[in-house]
Amino acid sequence: MTTTTLTATLPPPDILRCAYMEMQVTDLKKSREFYVDILGLHVTAEDDKTLYLRAMEEFIHHNLVLREGPVAAVAAFAYRVRSPQDVDRAEAYFQALGCKTERRTNGFVRGIGDAVRVEDPLGFPYEFFCEVQHVERLAWRYELYTPGSLVRLDHFNQITPDVPLAVAYIQGLGFRVTEDIRDASGVVYAAWVRRKSTVHDTAMTGGAGPRMHHIAFATHEKHNILAICDKLGALRRSDAIERGPGRHGVSNAFYLYIRDPDGHRIEIYTQDYYTGDPDNPLVSWDVHDNQRRDWWGNPVVPSWYSEGSRVLRLDGTPQPVVERSDPSEMAVTIGADGFSYTRKGDTDQGFKLGNTL
Amino acid sequence: MTTTTLTATLPPPDILRCAYMEMQVTDLKKSREFYVDILGLHVTAEDDKTLYLRAMEEFIHHNLVLREGPVAAVAAFAYRVRSPQDVDRAEAYFQALGCKTERRTNGFVRGIGDAVRVEDPLGFPYEFFCEVQHVERLAWRYELYTPGSLVRLDHFNQITPDVPLAVAYIQGLGFRVTEDIRDASGVVYAAWVRRKSTVHDTAMTGGAGPRMHHIAFATHEKHNILAICDKLGALRRSDAIERGPGRHGVSNAFYLYIRDPDGHRIEIYTQDYYTGDPDNPLVSWDVHDNQRRDWWGNPVVPSWYSEGSRVLRLDGTPQPVVERSDPSEMAVTIGADGFSYTRKGDTDQGFKLGNTL
Amino acid sequence: MTTTTLTATLPPPDILRCAYMEMQVTDLKKSREFYVDILGLHVTAEDDKTLYLRAMEEFIHHNLVLREGPVAAVAAFAYRVRSPQDVDRAEAYFQALGCKTERRTNGFVRGIGDAVRVEDPLGFPYEFFCEVQHVERLAWRYELYTPGSLVRLDHFNQITPDVPLAVAYIQGLGFRVTEDIRDASGVVYAAWVRRKSTVHDTAMTGGAGPRMHHIAFATHEKHNILAICDKLGALRRSDAIERGPGRHGVSNAFYLYIRDPDGHRIEIYTQDYYTGDPDNPLVSWDVHDNQRRDWWGNPVVPSWYSEGSRVLRLDGTPQPVVERSDPSEMAVTIGADGFSYTRKGDTDQGFKLGNTL
Amino acid sequence: MTTTTLTATLPPPDILRCAYMEMQVTDLKKSREFYVDILGLHVTAEDDKTLYLRAMEEFIHHNLVLREGPVAAVAAFAYRVRSPQDVDRAEAYFQALGCKTERRTNGFVRGIGDAVRVEDPLGFPYEFFCEVQHVERLAWRYELYTPGSLVRLDHFNQITPDVPLAVAYIQGLGFRVTEDIRDASGVVYAAWVRRKSTVHDTAMTGGAGPRMHHIAFATHEKHNILAICDKLGALRRSDAIERGPGRHGVSNAFYLYIRDPDGHRIEIYTQDYYTGDPDNPLVSWDVHDNQRRDWWGNPVVPSWYSEGSRVLRLDGTPQPVVERSDPSEMAVTIGADGFSYTRKGDTDQGFKLGNTL
Repeated sequence: MTTTTLTATLPPPDILRCAYMEMQVTDLKKSREFYVDILGLHVTAEDDKTLYLRAMEEFIHHNLVLREGPVAAVAAFAYRVRSPQDVDRAEAYFQALGCKTERRTNGFVRGIGDAVRVEDPLGFPYEFFCEVQHVERLAWRYELYTPGSLVRLDHFNQITPDVPLAVAYIQGLGFRVTEDIRDASGVVYAAWVRRKSTVHDTAMTGGAGPRMHHIAFATHEKHNILAICDKLGALRRSDAIERGPGRHGVSNAFYLYIRDPDGHRIEIYTQDYYTGDPDNPLVSWDVHDNQRRDWWGNPVVPSWYSEGSRVLRLDGTPQPVVERSDPSEMAVTIGADGFSYTRKGDTDQGFKLGNTL
Repeated sequence: MTTTTLTATLPPPDILRCAYMEMQVTDLKKSREFYVDILGLHVTAEDDKTLYLRAMEEFIHHNLVLREGPVAAVAAFAYRVRSPQDVDRAEAYFQALGCKTERRTNGFVRGIGDAVRVEDPLGFPYEFFCEVQHVERLAWRYELYTPGSLVRLDHFNQITPDVPLAVAYIQGLGFRVTEDIRDASGVVYAAWVRRKSTVHDTAMTGGAGPRMHHIAFATHEKHNILAICDKLGALRRSDAIERGPGRHGVSNAFYLYIRDPDGHRIEIYTQDYYTGDPDNPLVSWDVHDNQRRDWWGNPVVPSWYSEGSRVLRLDGTPQPVVERSDPSEMAVTIGADGFSYTRKGDTDQGFKLGNTL
Repeated sequence: MTTTTLTATLPPPDILRCAYMEMQVTDLKKSREFYVDILGLHVTAEDDKTLYLRAMEEFIHHNLVLREGPVAAVAAFAYRVRSPQDVDRAEAYFQALGCKTERRTNGFVRGIGDAVRVEDPLGFPYEFFCEVQHVERLAWRYELYTPGSLVRLDHFNQITPDVPLAVAYIQGLGFRVTEDIRDASGVVYAAWVRRKSTVHDTAMTGGAGPRMHHIAFATHEKHNILAICDKLGALRRSDAIERGPGRHGVSNAFYLYIRDPDGHRIEIYTQDYYTGDPDNPLVSWDVHDNQRRDWWGNPVVPSWYSEGSRVLRLDGTPQPVVERSDPSEMAVTIGADGFSYTRKGDTDQGFKLGNTL
Repeated sequence: MTTTTLTATLPPPDILRCAYMEMQVTDLKKSREFYVDILGLHVTAEDDKTLYLRAMEEFIHHNLVLREGPVAAVAAFAYRVRSPQDVDRAEAYFQALGCKTERRTNGFVRGIGDAVRVEDPLGFPYEFFCEVQHVERLAWRYELYTPGSLVRLDHFNQITPDVPLAVAYIQGLGFRVTEDIRDASGVVYAAWVRRKSTVHDTAMTGGAGPRMHHIAFATHEKHNILAICDKLGALRRSDAIERGPGRHGVSNAFYLYIRDPDGHRIEIYTQDYYTGDPDNPLVSWDVHDNQRRDWWGNPVVPSWYSEGSRVLRLDGTPQPVVERSDPSEMAVTIGADGFSYTRKGDTDQGFKLGNTL
């Protein structure tokens, strides 16, 4: 976080996609119940302290590693790169940025080969790997599907105090911005960036950071997301539902946010759009547009803006958190000092719950 | 409202189902845009001051009559009865109750024959008819369907101060209770009653009344309801969405509440269950169960509890409203004096927006 | 079958709905795998030789009884009646018709009380009961749902040689015709009849009979039916899919026909329409309309027309089968002597597979 | 077609994705009704002889150009490349292969800039362009959506006699094989190849060629595809449905094949999987596996195997068609000389319509 250099002149690694997250959880048994029994992620491997999970259409070893540890936190945001040489490039790139790096030719976790982990300039633990064990792609195994089956890891979302700074850094790493939220004075509240041809592989959300905002898995259709809500209700776990389901303005995807037993936030997500052309048009949203985060204008619960998961240094200790100095999205849109409109220029308040806060 | 007799010894009419509502609206052009252009109800007939609308699977002349008038209010909750003789029975029944009645052999509105309108003991304008003009059932006309097509009128919902009194009255009229919301002290907050084999033809919701809480139309599937939200967003009319979409606890149906240009509330509803057996089990919900009105525990916006449409006397003047003396559902479940639980006995508050009100 | 009297002057029982079928199967283990493991019907009770199954929204003891026996056949088409007295009425009605009847006050199967079974004038084993054990309605138990969950028993379908005769009989028993298939010369090929407010509780399909054509269960949505196909494919049981999925012309429902290990045909069905008004319009289809049985004009496989399950006499022996003397629907629509059109008067054949047979 | 050189030593252009097809149609009015009124493609521009259409989520000028001409044929399979220099690379690449090329700096059709068209070694008219006019991405315009809205161009499918030869050529051009159909003796019947991260941008289907097998558009969900079938039925155009809807084995996508007024085949397609990793596992299907083309084992209509659209030379005349010398997929799987199994080694025939042909 003390580095002021955000981009290096060296070529960045050719990143394919967000590939897996390593999360530290405080009670693996509870987490297993949540991710396996309720959400239906598939267990590739497990031991007493670790659980390796993947979505139905994945062919690499895992998309989520849950490791029992003393605090709830994220140990790695892992990206797959195109070639083994791109791991070298990643190592060199972050060393050139003055970042702490650690290389392990046998990987940091089971199923992954040669990999480098870094504490990036924003303070996030990023991993880059290419070698990975292939496992069965369960796409055709319909006897294993549940009504809410998760089929793909879709994206990460990170909280960081200075969004333009974060965007400059991640663009240097080869990501492209697809959408953002701004105000008329030029403040940027959040930005979505991608490597694969979807709206994002990760997003930079303005707030005290570095923290993890959420990890998102995709379903095939919208009813699959509704089925997850129905099941949480049936299990009397509806208080795990934090926000949604709803339609995003940003990304145009259908979404749901839930919280795991440690409070880690998971998004369930479906149906954004193809972004693979280099001139894919940027979509900028006005922070006061009440449909930007929920196309139906439904309120964003305050916890969604303010809470997030701590991230770990390479030595396993929590990375300190720095406050945001720019205005917060919640403050400018809700409550006495904020406002949101349905139609630009329209000052009606209406009965939306957000207006009554 | 002054009558104290709620049931008559005469046989009640054999009611088939809720059939149509006559609503007074203050700007027919705006209402036409809402119900026809946005919601896609089919126009059976119209003139300068009146619009006759039906859902895609209906074969009787209309399910909704919109008539331009000085105030937004409901002129009639109309039920179809089994035979012409049941119109006579209805007239006699309400006359025996001391209610004001009006019989018109040519009907009160276009498309309907011999009918009787009454001011019922709760103050609601009810109509009973059998003769009706048949029109094309558009069920197979898929070239006319939209993503959010409404296929059936499902039910009415009425606000009345004393729910047990209202239930006694409507049971006398031949309705059966399918579900209700109660508390441990015996207060009844709402009850659902049916003639056709669904969860309800109408419901009695505790509150200042007589007022109309909502009229509900059914879609085929859940995605149809989501499509209505998406369209309202696209038209920058998302502020018409009052509550939902969500899954009801009561009825197990998927729902959405929207408000028309006059504030009349419309529910879009799909997938409740068969209730046609005489011993269909009553489902009673604890008023403090946070999943009773939304299975996912999402908050109920205050306007949903407090607002409703006035109803008209037979002479077209608004019926006076009487306050509820029993505790209100909103008061006992939200805020300093109320509480709701996800798991009975559990006192966690969590991040649900309702908890932050 | 020798009776020529089809209707009695006595009042028929007040039938609520089709309630369950008792099927004889030749290998209960295989049938259990099919109905429980694959289709996900819920086991209410079981013993070595019998399995009692129900759909998710049912509150009576079962919708399907599978009993191991020497031949694959149907032992009873069971209807629930409104009151205990209606069981008496049923017994008297069929005795007046000269039919063989058997009354058991403790029921023929577990969970059912006083019931009468009859060999009806068409040769079918019908049961009428009112008393039944209530069990949990699993509608809200979303943790038990599968992607293809069956939520209701919807209807039976019977094969009988003389459809007009069968319709006269069943109308006498209080059923109403909702749709039928005819030709210009007056031959009736099939008719759909209902007690509850759907398109049918049973249908009379022209062919060698008495035989059972199929029993149908409902899902909530169309994707649930597709999920059953996907699962059968994953289990390498796709050869259990006989016809569909598709959209019916008749009933407007979405459908799939599969065959159990004994060849008993099951339909999975969703989204027909309300038929509860006494003047519900009859929909008559031309037998040559290629969209009558599949709205998309997809071919009906020959086995669907020609195969069916034997039915049992009250003594457990198979009822003899009588051939149809009227023209068969398959013969008049497919092959050298038949024809089907997409647009009336249009003689184009096109590439439909049915045209290449 | 006379060239024997299939790959050049020059670098191929960096192809982003299949972008649009130019089709010649014989009656533009009829085609407009089909593609615009029925399928709901959006009109970007049109004149007396030409129609420029795009899907809802597209931001480039068009995905389909319909041009009225004397014969029904395909004038261009157009791919977008990453940079203007890639158009140069494409021109050089095909010139090095000895192919006829034509460069137009102002494009061949409206909305497209500098482009090169080639007659490729397989005889297909391919176009490569980068410059294109941006238009509104209609993704958020839900007021324009229909129940069957097409949201993206997904892929092309080409018929060519020698599949391994075609694969060698297209791999040289930078495509990767994702799935194929083979037999034990090594005959390849079809192969799917991709640039973007889906199962394919085009496929090589064995048969008399060069011909166009189909062009495919994606919907969001499966019910959207069913809605297209329902609408075709309602319009009495069900004979435009050639095959499906169904689930593919290959690609795992949900599909429908329809035929336009000229017989051009369109696939409607949804839900394949991510293929963007370089080591994405190849899925090879046995040609005798009855679930390879339809996961539910439903029959493939003969026309689907045998019919296709002619393609045009750069001078606008039809390219001659060469027969396939390898065994045909239809011959080895259907009829007296072919066989298909549900379970490998199982010789049951069952009631599948394909078995009765």
